[in-house]
Amino acid sequence: MANSSSGDSVTDRLLRVLETFTPTRTVQTATEIGRRAGLPSATAHRMVGELVDAGLLERDDDKRIRIGMRLWELATRSSHALRLRQAAMPHMERVQARIGEHTQLAILEQDEALFLERLSSPGSGSNVTRVAGRLPLHASSSGLVLLAFGSLSLQERVLASPLRPLAPETITDPAALRRKLAEVRRVGHAVAPGSIEAVSTGVAVPVRDETGGVIAALSAVLPRDAQVEIALFELYHAARETGRALGYRG
Amino acid sequence: MANSSSGDSVTDRLLRVLETFTPTRTVQTATEIGRRAGLPSATAHRMVGELVDAGLLERDDDKRIRIGMRLWELATRSSHALRLRQAAMPHMERVQARIGEHTQLAILEQDEALFLERLSSPGSGSNVTRVAGRLPLHASSSGLVLLAFGSLSLQERVLASPLRPLAPETITDPAALRRKLAEVRRVGHAVAPGSIEAVSTGVAVPVRDETGGVIAALSAVLPRDAQVEIALFELYHAARETGRALGYRG
Repeated sequence: MANSSSGDSVTDRLLRVLETFTPTRTVQTATEIGRRAGLPSATAHRMVGELVDAGLLERDDDKRIRIGMRLWELATRSSHALRLRQAAMPHMERVQARIGEHTQLAILEQDEALFLERLSSPGSGSNVTRVAGRLPLHASSSGLVLLAFGSLSLQERVLASPLRPLAPETITDPAALRRKLAEVRRVGHAVAPGSIEAVSTGVAVPVRDETGGVIAALSAVLPRDAQVEIALFELYHAARETGRALGYRG
Repeated sequence: MANSSSGDSVTDRLLRVLETFTPTRTVQTATEIGRRAGLPSATAHRMVGELVDAGLLERDDDKRIRIGMRLWELATRSSHALRLRQAAMPHMERVQARIGEHTQLAILEQDEALFLERLSSPGSGSNVTRVAGRLPLHASSSGLVLLAFGSLSLQERVLASPLRPLAPETITDPAALRRKLAEVRRVGHAVAPGSIEAVSTGVAVPVRDETGGVIAALSAVLPRDAQVEIALFELYHAARETGRALGYRG
């Protein structure tokens, strides 16, 4: 697309505008968007005006800008995220009904675990995961599954990067992470006590396609000292049924 | 944003590209995108290339183009759709568990009912609604609620437009629709037997904000001759609780 005088494409600028919106920053002024996106104010105002006209952004009652319902609709209605999520939903609901704890679906996206869905009961414990939110691969149980069954190049990239702690028990030592990944491959699932929050244990299993490739992780967040067996049994069942719903014979 | 020689802005062209993807057309070649968006092939290929580089579109294993997970993430993580949907979810799950039929959340968007969520059991009956899909306001029970409690200008606009039948019993006569809307306002909810499909009855109730304004509709799709009372009771309860979860005291 057309380039600006600074050489960045309109697509780059659009991406920068969209990236200024976060789960905790859902409305902004055009001036704030420009500042956060590193765009001249006039450019930001013109771009925001055009995106509002197209319905991709919206003005709320206070004239502040938010993500447009039309953008959500266009990004969702034909997305792979929706297909995977719709296939998994009935089985995730069953898991959630059986164990009464947070139940989640995640995929690998840009070296992180991206959460497509999260079901929670009012009585469920603490959980930092959000729909369309991300967690590091080395810290979350979903991430450990996606990493353990991911490509060797992904594993080497993550093992060579700083392994930031999210909690005192997050694995931050590359050698320990390597051992953990080998364990996940050997037992077929991940159990991660205290690696995101001291009070909880994440458990995750892989969702596989017809060739055995891992396309997603189904996980549950349990109270720290809960038994993991029933949750794992239900998650394995749900993962198998999700694969079937996607047309894989498994 | 920069204009092309034909005078349409890059935002317009971006919107046209995104609109070529639909629930039934989730992957396309760049050439097909260009043709469907009415763009010259070179322009389409360049735009698609840039959008793929930004992660807003993706190439699948067959080099065909689909909506990018990054676009879904950016459009979802800070969206009003997600906030509303997260507030409604636990209550929709309860409705669905109690009545065992499709349970849906819709908002008014560009004079149509846009569905933000749909929960279904394996045993639920027929249902044309899709997540991020739309139905006409005059035909769906959700639409009738959103229309009945919508602005007068919206009502006049819809009443003056062609009322397309989706099924033999869809209301297509403006005078009959006017009477139906008055009934919805009087009883507080919509019951629409056979208006989308002959085999089912839609029932919908409003979700209200603090001032009583209607911000969404919660609905269920029942077998045609099912009793509607229990579904309505559960939907009213869920709508009230959704309003509370959004911080409205109601």
